[in-house]
Parts: sequence; structure tokens; C-alpha cells
Amino acid sequence: MGHLDRVSLVTLGVRDIAASTRFYAALGWHVSSASQPTITFLRSATVALGLYGRDALAEDARVTADGTGFRATALAANVPAREDVDAALAHAERAGARVVKPAEDAFWGGRSGYFADPDGHLWEVAWNPHAQVDDAGRMALPD
Amino acid sequence: MGHLDRVSLVTLGVRDIAASTRFYAALGWHVSSASQPTITFLRSATVALGLYGRDALAEDARVTADGTGFRATALAANVPAREDVDAALAHAERAGARVVKPAEDAFWGGRSGYFADPDGHLWEVAWNPHAQVDDAGRMALPD
Repeated sequence: MGHLDRVSLVTLGVRDIAASTRFYAALGWHVSSASQPTITFLRSATVALGLYGRDALAEDARVTADGTGFRATALAANVPAREDVDAALAHAERAGARVVKPAEDAFWGGRSGYFADPDGHLWEVAWNPHAQVDDAGRMALPD
Repeated sequence: MGHLDRVSLVTLGVRDIAASTRFYAALGWHVSSASQPTITFLRSATVALGLYGRDALAEDARVTADGTGFRATALAANVPAREDVDAALAHAERAGARVVKPAEDAFWGGRSGYFADPDGHLWEVAWNPHAQVDDAGRMALPD
């Protein structure tokens, strides 16, 4: 067993850890006491989120920090009802996010929109009537 | 409540969905029967992983697909023992990953390394003696 069938932590490289921590706290995330000045740990019922310096993350991974544009990655927060998509995007905008796609009905029968965090990390906010999602946002995929 | 304190799904934009699906299956991920030709859903005890076309993801988010280099994002798989880091990186390499940072002891007392998936998405493999991680890789952060 390679222990690679899991995500324990999603780390986002950010330019200003304090500012990003305030942003995620305003979204509703709980800042763990394990946080340090160089890294913020955010708790959730699914996976933990880490906010780490952008350059420090590149250095830790031994890759160059050069990079621009689309990151080909999106985190999704599933919400329990159709109207929650609009409310969540408005909430994110008040917290300082940039809404890149306002809520709209999707071809797959749900409703979704996207926002970018202060560093441009993309989040989808989705209501999916075909997905089993519990109160904490955990998605139960069929076998 | 904005329902934004959660990650329900991590979506990775990929160039070849079938090839990436084979890669993640070789890592040990379970491919859900909810998968379709245009999207693969991978199950885990923590968060679900989606493999979606890179350009399709940009289009869905209404952003340009132009982007190169460092994505300032890393997914971490925590493993239960120090020696598991080396074994997991070797496993990933056999599955077709590129090891960008071989396993090494970290200043914070653990051991970690990084690999890149076929599209360059970064994964850290970490053993952290200070973190509470269960058998499924879920990290229990202190309040």
C-alpha cells in the first residue's frame, strides 16, 4: 500500500499569510492553534487547508516559483440548496473575493459559480442535486 | 452561514483524462462509477478528487486557460511512518510520476518529498510526527 489514495492537506501558496488568513476566517474557516507565523492551518470536516508563503512552497518542493495565469486547479465547496450558491458567492465577495463567474444554472442540472481568493486560487461553489453531500460538505461518491 | 468552510472536491485540470485516470488508479485511488468520459471522480476518505479537462475547467470557471509554471498549490498525502515517505515516492515514480524532491528529513522534525503528476500537479508525501493522522490520512488539527 502506497498510502497515496488520499489528500490530508491542501496547501495554497499565498503572498500575505496574515491577509489570506483573515480572508479565509471571514469565509468561515476555523484557524487551528497549530498555526504559526509562517503557516496557517485551517480546519474543516473534510480536508485541512494550509496557507503558506508562495515562494516558501516552491522552495520546499524544489521547483521554481515562476508561474503565471491559470493553475488548472479548483477547489469546490458544495452547498445544500440551489439558492445557497448565490448567497455563498455574495458572502465570498463581501469577504474580499473576486467573483469570476456569477451563479448560473449548469447543463448538468445544478447551479454553480466561481470566485478567486486574494491570490487568484479558484473556488467553485456548487449545488449538485445528483451528488450526496452531507451537512459538512463531504461528498459521498458511489462505488 | 456561507457554507464556504469546506472543500467537497478538488478538481485537477488535465490534458488526457484517460491517462490521468490510469495514473491515479495506479497510485491506489478508487475510480467512482459516477465518472463519465469528460470527468473522473476519485473517492477517498477525506476529499474527493476530480480529473477534468484543463481547457474545460478554465471554460467552466470563465477564465483564460493560459498559464505556465508554478501553480502555488500542493496536495499532501500524509503517511503513517518515516520510511513510508520513501516507499510512497518510489511507488509514485513507478506509476509514472516525476519525483521533484526526493525524500529528506525536514527542519520541522518529519520527513517529506514531492512528486508531480503527469500534468505537473504537485503532491507532497509527508510523515509528520507532530500531526495526528488517522489510517485514512485524515489530519486532526488542534482547535
